[in-house]
Order: sequence, then C-alpha cells, then structure tokens
Amino acid sequence: MDMIVRNILVTLRFCGTGYHGFQVQANALSVCEVFQDALEKVLDARPDVKGCSRTDSGVHANKYCLSVKTQNPIPCDKLVSALNHHLPGDMAVLEAKDVPEGFHARYSCTGKEYIYRIHNSRIRDPFSPGLTYRFGFSLDEVMLDREAQGFVGTHDFAAFCSAGSDVEDTVRTVRSFSVTREGDTVLFTVRGDGFLYNMVRIMVGTLVFIGMGRIAAGSIPGIIASRDRNNAGKTMPAQGLYLNDVFY
Amino acid sequence: MDMIVRNILVTLRFCGTGYHGFQVQANALSVCEVFQDALEKVLDARPDVKGCSRTDSGVHANKYCLSVKTQNPIPCDKLVSALNHHLPGDMAVLEAKDVPEGFHARYSCTGKEYIYRIHNSRIRDPFSPGLTYRFGFSLDEVMLDREAQGFVGTHDFAAFCSAGSDVEDTVRTVRSFSVTREGDTVLFTVRGDGFLYNMVRIMVGTLVFIGMGRIAAGSIPGIIASRDRNNAGKTMPAQGLYLNDVFY
Repeated sequence: MDMIVRNILVTLRFCGTGYHGFQVQANALSVCEVFQDALEKVLDARPDVKGCSRTDSGVHANKYCLSVKTQNPIPCDKLVSALNHHLPGDMAVLEAKDVPEGFHARYSCTGKEYIYRIHNSRIRDPFSPGLTYRFGFSLDEVMLDREAQGFVGTHDFAAFCSAGSDVEDTVRTVRSFSVTREGDTVLFTVRGDGFLYNMVRIMVGTLVFIGMGRIAAGSIPGIIASRDRNNAGKTMPAQGLYLNDVFY
Repeated sequence: MDMIVRNILVTLRFCGTGYHGFQVQANALSVCEVFQDALEKVLDARPDVKGCSRTDSGVHANKYCLSVKTQNPIPCDKLVSALNHHLPGDMAVLEAKDVPEGFHARYSCTGKEYIYRIHNSRIRDPFSPGLTYRFGFSLDEVMLDREAQGFVGTHDFAAFCSAGSDVEDTVRTVRSFSVTREGDTVLFTVRGDGFLYNMVRIMVGTLVFIGMGRIAAGSIPGIIASRDRNNAGKTMPAQGLYLNDVFY
C-alpha cells in the first residue's frame, strides 16, 4: 500500500525572546528546532519543516506559517492539541490544515505584514520585557503616518537593507504602511510582497529619526532614490518586531 | 535647624509574578522590600513605607500607591528617575509628589479599582505567562456584564471573603462592575470603597461559574444574602488580577 504524503500548513505564534530566530543553527536554540522536537514526539518522525521566513534573534510572531510533509494520518485538530501539549509556553500552534503537495510556506507566500511596537514613554513598562522597544522621545504618530506613505509602492529598497544579505534584486513592493497609537504604544504596521534583510527595522528607524528631527520630513523618497544605506536611520532593535500576518 | 519631615506619595507599577505580594515577609521576596532597597540607595536611609493595600503573591499593579516619610530634600522628579534607575525591570515608579503630613496611603484611600484579565481561548498566549488567566470555555461578556450588576451597591460580602481574614465588618460598597471583551481577553473591572480578602477573585470566579452554567443566572443577590462562602464560585488565580487605580 502506498502511503499518502500529506503537506500540512501549520500556523504558529511565538515569543522570540528566548530564541535565535526561526532557522535551525548549530550552536544556538531556534524556534524551528524546538518545533521539530515537539513534532517528533507527535509524529514519531522528524520531518523537514519549511518556514515562511527567517526571523532574527528576538523577533516575535503573532502568525508564522510553516509547512510539514508527513505520511502520518493524524487529524489536523489532534495535531494542534498534541503539538501545544509538547511545545513550551512561549509557543502555540493556532491552526493546522492540509494543503496541496506543491505548497511551500516560503515560495507560495504572496505577502507579509509586520508590526513594530514602540513603548513611547520615559518610564519602562514592567509587563513587557523583550516585547516592545522603549523610546522616551515623544513621537507624533500623525506626522509619522504621513511620512510613512513615502515607502508605499514598488521601489528599489537598497538603502533599507543591511549588509550581509546575499539578495541581488532589492526591488520590493510596500503595499501599505500605517503609524498609529494605542496609549503609550506606537504601532508601525507595514504590508508588502516581501522584505529585505532588516528592511522593516530600518524603515521604522528612519521614521523615528524623522520624528526626532534628525532626518528632515519629506526625505523618504530621496533616501530610497539614493540607494545608500547611510542615508537611512538606524536599525531598530529586534524586540519590538512582530511578523503579524502571512498571505497566500 | 529643624529638618522638615516630608510625606511623599509614590505611584508604582509592578509585575507581581516574581514577588510574594507587597508586604514585607520574613522568608520571601516582596515588592516592598525591593522598593525599600532602591529607596535606601537614593535617600541614604531606609524609611518606613506605607502601602495602599496588601496584595497577594503574583498579583500585579498598574497603579499602586505608597507613602514615604523622609527629611531628604530631593526634588520629586529626581526621586522618580533615581528610583527607576535602581529598581528592577519589573517595577517602575510613575510619579512622586509631596502630600500633607497626615496623609496615609492606606487609611486616606477612598476607593480602588481592580481589573481581572482572562485570556478566553483554548490556545495559550505565548506573550503573557503570568499576566492573564487562560480559560478555554467561551464566555459571553454581555451576559456576564448584566449578571455583575448584582454586586453593585452596599452589601455584606461575607460570602465573597476567603477564610483567614481577621476582618470583622464584611460590609463593603461596590460602586461599579463591568465585563468587557478586547479580542480574546475578557476584562472584569470592579470599583469599590474597599475589598475583603480575595473578594475580587471570588466575585470573578462566581461570574465564570455563571458563564459555564454551574451557577444559575440571577443568583448573585441570593449568594450575597446567604453570607455563605460555599455558595459562591472558586477563587480565581492571582495571575489575572491587577490593582488598576487608587482613589484619594
């Protein structure tokens, strides 16, 4: 009897504070390795896992997608509860569903949404160590929202890519970018077809510099056109960044 | 020269996960002890601290008030930043201000507001260990809000007081009680002149039992009248409870 090979799309939420990103690494604990440990307990095998993106050390995910190929006939709802039983408290599986054989969590992805959270206060939040970036200078979210529209569209984002990336094509499409406030929290929400290495963190860092007056308002189109990383703002720390949604 | 004795009201926010409540204890770390350690570094003395209430182990405070008597002339804004420099990351001083000599954080208090947070989902929240209580049975916040109005008013709340309290007068006034939802979070917000030992956690536990059908809707006035702890619901775990506001 031929076993049917299933391809299962799993949606994961994780707090990235304790992990060196998603990707398995030789000498550091990764989200993928811990997920595979739980998978092995449930499936009695250690299938290869395809993640929707690398994430950096300390980056979080409200929604991260990965695909797993297995011959195990376990029903999807049982897979969810069994994985949650074996996963540590800083990870949770939200959903699992069968997808066509050709589906790939990374290559089938048509877009992603990231959120960057700034705790905009001179006083730290005792409840969120590692979950926001605290920044004391008061930010004007209305002005920053207006400035952020300079990112929207299809551009060569070479100025917003950290060194160390081996990507050759630096053209990406930013579909939307909003800056909003909820109390002391300023939220930067950006949606696009894909993002270069550290692109979201550099875009937010550039907006923060505009908010502080260290970069002039209206500069974003010129910085994009320059293709020069030195003209953009700093790369914001990982702890405020959340992969928020993945589109297929 | 006579030194002027100042009385300073300090507003503190803390995550209670790592502490055995506010009150100093012989064999367990308390919020007050850690606060006094920081105070001693700033004032070069270890003044007595009057807290607005005892809080149980694991209970949090968005706003906790305490008063400190000192002869130190340090300006209030400098006291705030110096204390925040010396306090651990799970505590933050929000404000400090001079108050009249007769002011006492506990006895001058005219009311308090507590919030209880339930993560109402079958799937845990990887971002909030110790900050909410997860409860999988789906709660109807509209129905619970209606039921909660049975607590409002001046009543003998003996049925909502844990054993171990030495309080004789169990009459308290609940000024308002609301149950609302923000996504997966159900918030129980109760305001009153004062609360008996575990009273908020037992009131919320009774509402949860009503939500599950283990206690009939409309029962709250009868449970209050019975003055019998056995008729109320369970005491909810400490981790979902926040002292949210203190009134003077």
